[in-house]
Amino acid sequence: MARPRLSDARRPLTFTIDAVNEHGEAVPTRIAGEHPLTIYVDRQELVTLMTLGGAPEALTLGYLRNQRLVNGVDDIAAIQVDWEVNAVAVTTHAGTGVEPRRVEKRTVTTGCGQGTVFGDLMADIDAIRLPAERRLEQATLYGLLDAVRHHESIYKQAGAVHGCALARGAEILMFVEDVGRDNAVDAIAGQMWLDGLGGEDKIFYTTGRLTSEMVIKTAQMGIPFLVSRSGLTQMGFELATRVGMTMIGRAQGKHYLLFTGRERFER
Amino acid sequence: MARPRLSDARRPLTFTIDAVNEHGEAVPTRIAGEHPLTIYVDRQELVTLMTLGGAPEALTLGYLRNQRLVNGVDDIAAIQVDWEVNAVAVTTHAGTGVEPRRVEKRTVTTGCGQGTVFGDLMADIDAIRLPAERRLEQATLYGLLDAVRHHESIYKQAGAVHGCALARGAEILMFVEDVGRDNAVDAIAGQMWLDGLGGEDKIFYTTGRLTSEMVIKTAQMGIPFLVSRSGLTQMGFELATRVGMTMIGRAQGKHYLLFTGRERFER
Repeated sequence: MARPRLSDARRPLTFTIDAVNEHGEAVPTRIAGEHPLTIYVDRQELVTLMTLGGAPEALTLGYLRNQRLVNGVDDIAAIQVDWEVNAVAVTTHAGTGVEPRRVEKRTVTTGCGQGTVFGDLMADIDAIRLPAERRLEQATLYGLLDAVRHHESIYKQAGAVHGCALARGAEILMFVEDVGRDNAVDAIAGQMWLDGLGGEDKIFYTTGRLTSEMVIKTAQMGIPFLVSRSGLTQMGFELATRVGMTMIGRAQGKHYLLFTGRERFER
Repeated sequence: MARPRLSDARRPLTFTIDAVNEHGEAVPTRIAGEHPLTIYVDRQELVTLMTLGGAPEALTLGYLRNQRLVNGVDDIAAIQVDWEVNAVAVTTHAGTGVEPRRVEKRTVTTGCGQGTVFGDLMADIDAIRLPAERRLEQATLYGLLDAVRHHESIYKQAGAVHGCALARGAEILMFVEDVGRDNAVDAIAGQMWLDGLGGEDKIFYTTGRLTSEMVIKTAQMGIPFLVSRSGLTQMGFELATRVGMTMIGRAQGKHYLLFTGRERFER
């Protein structure tokens, strides 16, 4: 499989502005970048994403994948980001763009602004089988939480981004941050797709909430373990139970709550 | 103007599940509700939103408004939510549904999953004039932060939702929480639209980040003051500067950072 030709067009992740605090003092404040990135597939305008710009090529690929707009990474010849025009040009081998049917489907099933492709995702979810034999030990979880804490993170600098990590055991393989939680997940999915990585021996960590979408996307990556420092929603809980995912929330330092898939966890 | 007929189909906002903590102890944990709500306009399926279900009718109206899918509230005869089928039926007086042109536009300009209708919104933003003469005093800001803190909030219970408040001075007029920040904003916009409320004498408070979308939606509601306990993004900063909005972040207790529109703020 030929890897697509990719630009490497990362943007600076933070900027400094002058704010004024409650004492009337000027306070230089680092803020997260946020840039529009309009995706064109074979010159057809598809969508505009707002992104931090840390991994625009992987984000584009992951977005196209998670929205079911392309079949596979080997359909794609090139992904070229040009910040001069805030656009990314995706070139397919077929050169025929995105099937109208798929875009159409998106318009009726996608919760625009809510970040879920509901119809499609629910149809897929029951086909997913996560490996039952995998185990996660408490010591490994603590090691991962420690690694995340030490990870150089915009979150600490600018406090306006979501972070997601792909880990094997306590080792962080990728860490992506973005202004939108969905972007960070899509970027990791895209990078996994590019690198041909499977999810069965991985752990997905997010700073964000364990919503239905987070559970669905993690399940689609084939990852049996989902860890967050935040809480979860009812549907996140129901879906994690349904796909047999081991889900852990409120995970920080030496504290956590094991929500689902207890059989895979060893304390 | 005849107010649309509305159902009053709020859902229970939190549920309790059993989690297990690091000591192996069962911990009853309250989690936020999350429900799919599929919007039908004159029987035409439009989109599925994931929502806490606290204000589904206002959310539906605000979503239709902010996505530019209806012209005005007086086009709408009824908004009826039926949780038996997780659907909301919107009936227009014309009975002609949503113009295909508008849905089509949405498919190319909406950052699905990123929650921004970029093309449309940027086209509108320069037409917005926020009242320059309005003032906000530090004491009023502190009063509002105090009111928010005391406000009975799911956030404190389940920690998986975003909260938004519409305030006049230190008085909270509406407080909406949802699993998606976009939902909470849309629901407040919808309720303001229903009640015919103007934004010029209001303050918009959010627990979420000050992104481009948050600034744009606040500006579209005609609200000159935007306050958050969180940080901001570069584009949120640029847009707030562009529309002349007074934007305050990291606001909690007696601390805050004044980012833009300093001329309206009196310490």
